[in-house]
Amino acid sequence: MTTGVIQLDHGTGGGMSQELIAELIAPRLGAVHSGRMEDSAVLELEVNRIALTTDSFVIDPIFFGNGDIGKLAVCGTVNDLAVSGAVPRYLTLSLVLEEGFALADLERVLDSVREAAAAARVEVVAGDTKVVRAGEIDRLFINTAGVGLFERDLELGVGRVVTGDTVIVTGWLGNHSIHILSLREGLGFEQRVLSDCAPLDGMVGDVLEEQGRSVRCMRDITRGGLGTVLNELAEGAGVSIRIERQRLPIQHETAMAADMLGVDPLYLANEGNICMLVAPGAAAEILEVVRRHPNGGAAQIVGTVREREGSPVTIVGTDGTETVVELLYGAELPRLC
Amino acid sequence: MTTGVIQLDHGTGGGMSQELIAELIAPRLGAVHSGRMEDSAVLELEVNRIALTTDSFVIDPIFFGNGDIGKLAVCGTVNDLAVSGAVPRYLTLSLVLEEGFALADLERVLDSVREAAAAARVEVVAGDTKVVRAGEIDRLFINTAGVGLFERDLELGVGRVVTGDTVIVTGWLGNHSIHILSLREGLGFEQRVLSDCAPLDGMVGDVLEEQGRSVRCMRDITRGGLGTVLNELAEGAGVSIRIERQRLPIQHETAMAADMLGVDPLYLANEGNICMLVAPGAAAEILEVVRRHPNGGAAQIVGTVREREGSPVTIVGTDGTETVVELLYGAELPRLC
Repeated sequence: MTTGVIQLDHGTGGGMSQELIAELIAPRLGAVHSGRMEDSAVLELEVNRIALTTDSFVIDPIFFGNGDIGKLAVCGTVNDLAVSGAVPRYLTLSLVLEEGFALADLERVLDSVREAAAAARVEVVAGDTKVVRAGEIDRLFINTAGVGLFERDLELGVGRVVTGDTVIVTGWLGNHSIHILSLREGLGFEQRVLSDCAPLDGMVGDVLEEQGRSVRCMRDITRGGLGTVLNELAEGAGVSIRIERQRLPIQHETAMAADMLGVDPLYLANEGNICMLVAPGAAAEILEVVRRHPNGGAAQIVGTVREREGSPVTIVGTDGTETVVELLYGAELPRLC
Repeated sequence: MTTGVIQLDHGTGGGMSQELIAELIAPRLGAVHSGRMEDSAVLELEVNRIALTTDSFVIDPIFFGNGDIGKLAVCGTVNDLAVSGAVPRYLTLSLVLEEGFALADLERVLDSVREAAAAARVEVVAGDTKVVRAGEIDRLFINTAGVGLFERDLELGVGRVVTGDTVIVTGWLGNHSIHILSLREGLGFEQRVLSDCAPLDGMVGDVLEEQGRSVRCMRDITRGGLGTVLNELAEGAGVSIRIERQRLPIQHETAMAADMLGVDPLYLANEGNICMLVAPGAAAEILEVVRRHPNGGAAQIVGTVREREGSPVTIVGTDGTETVVELLYGAELPRLC
């Protein structure tokens, strides 16, 4: 490993692969890593009901203002598990590396994996490392699969949504996307609009602990943004959802940047933002629990669930007119996560 | 999707992503697919002990003589789980696609995923699809994570290996690698040396069912080849392993091609070949069980476990001289899986 960059032999499965794992990957992961990072991990579970999820991360650039692809990979998978109602517990970590990728950059990414996994109280139990020739991939892609345990006696799901339910959004809409797009396009907003990338298992855990019976379902607001999430929920539940433009948590600079880019924050991906459908009587208390959390300060009640009539999702503008929130069809915004 | 190729908007998370999943991916996976191919799958398990594994597949070319990256991804993960002693049950499927990748090729790959998953009796329960710009990846990479259930009351592991144990190899050494290298280099061996890529859960299941108490541990012979697997096993068990060159199952054409390429089949990756360490008294019967299997016809007893003295692994040549089987250090053979 003396050349300081990834070589093809780091992926050959022999001595150099073993050295990379033993001398760089395992030490960097430190306490959040258990097992041999090869082949299968054996897990003894205390429950019989688990959540399983997978995500590949291809973000460009891999390092951004307040995070990187490693943090993103952990948070994305942790949040997917958390919104299912499961407690995130185990991750796998699969790296596909470009020949010539700097080992120092790999170390930075793994430091972020360690920090995010520690924050989310998950263990990395199995891994894989592949190396492809220079030019065959752009630097580094990561896949994380995750296992969460259903430790609470709660059923969440779109089938539990009923007319009258309240829609809560836990954070600023679109900040992750605007941060990355601004970095890529050199717009200068990246200092003022940071990525929201964060593990939200703690926030979700507190909500379920204190008000779990009143939560119908939750969704991570990722690709496609709130507009897509709400359309999926409305279709799944057979209801209509009406939101109000003036209640949407949108940071001023995010709105400005989105305007410049010709995109709507309603369709932009977050990486640490959740949409919750909850019983109306508990909405104010749930909002308080969310706002106590470091990533929940901007949380808002944004709308209500109604009987299905007309379009699945509508938005009431600041002038009082109601328009349809269509499903996003195309936007050509690749590699935001 | 009328252009017939992957577009950036297939990865944006909105309508085109949903159409790709609903109209192409889900129908192609057919009966082996359950769940929504998005977010978390909820699994009800009958056991509390599971195996979890992950592998990314970056093979070049993605289509080869008797298989493709889809078959490889399923078999690789199924075999990882099977050798742990777990029954492979659930897979995740994460696709990273290059803009411009032909949908017809994606369909072919998914057909193979379906066929291999059906053969191995595993379900695809969660998925992810990302699209990157043209030139940022070479066509298609796949990650599969897998969950297996420990349904048998058996403990396999390198800690169970004792002096006197017998080493069995279940198939031709190196055939997968020689097939791919021959295709890539245009050597002309690819018609006569086929990939061994196959799901071996059935073979392993039969061995464990009939002779499970006599099996110490098993390893999938993948990157690094038998030489690397034996070194890892010998180090892990604190023993020495001696194998005999003339007993190694090496197809004639594979030996010829390896010679031309300047590589040793002892260090070449398979994708459907297992090394088993077993009690000597049961070795002949286990060999019979393996040979009954369609992928076990070439199985051989290749060596024995001895007390540690000198090198971890040695090989006795056809002239009777014993030499050290070093750990493979470098070979620059990227993208064989």
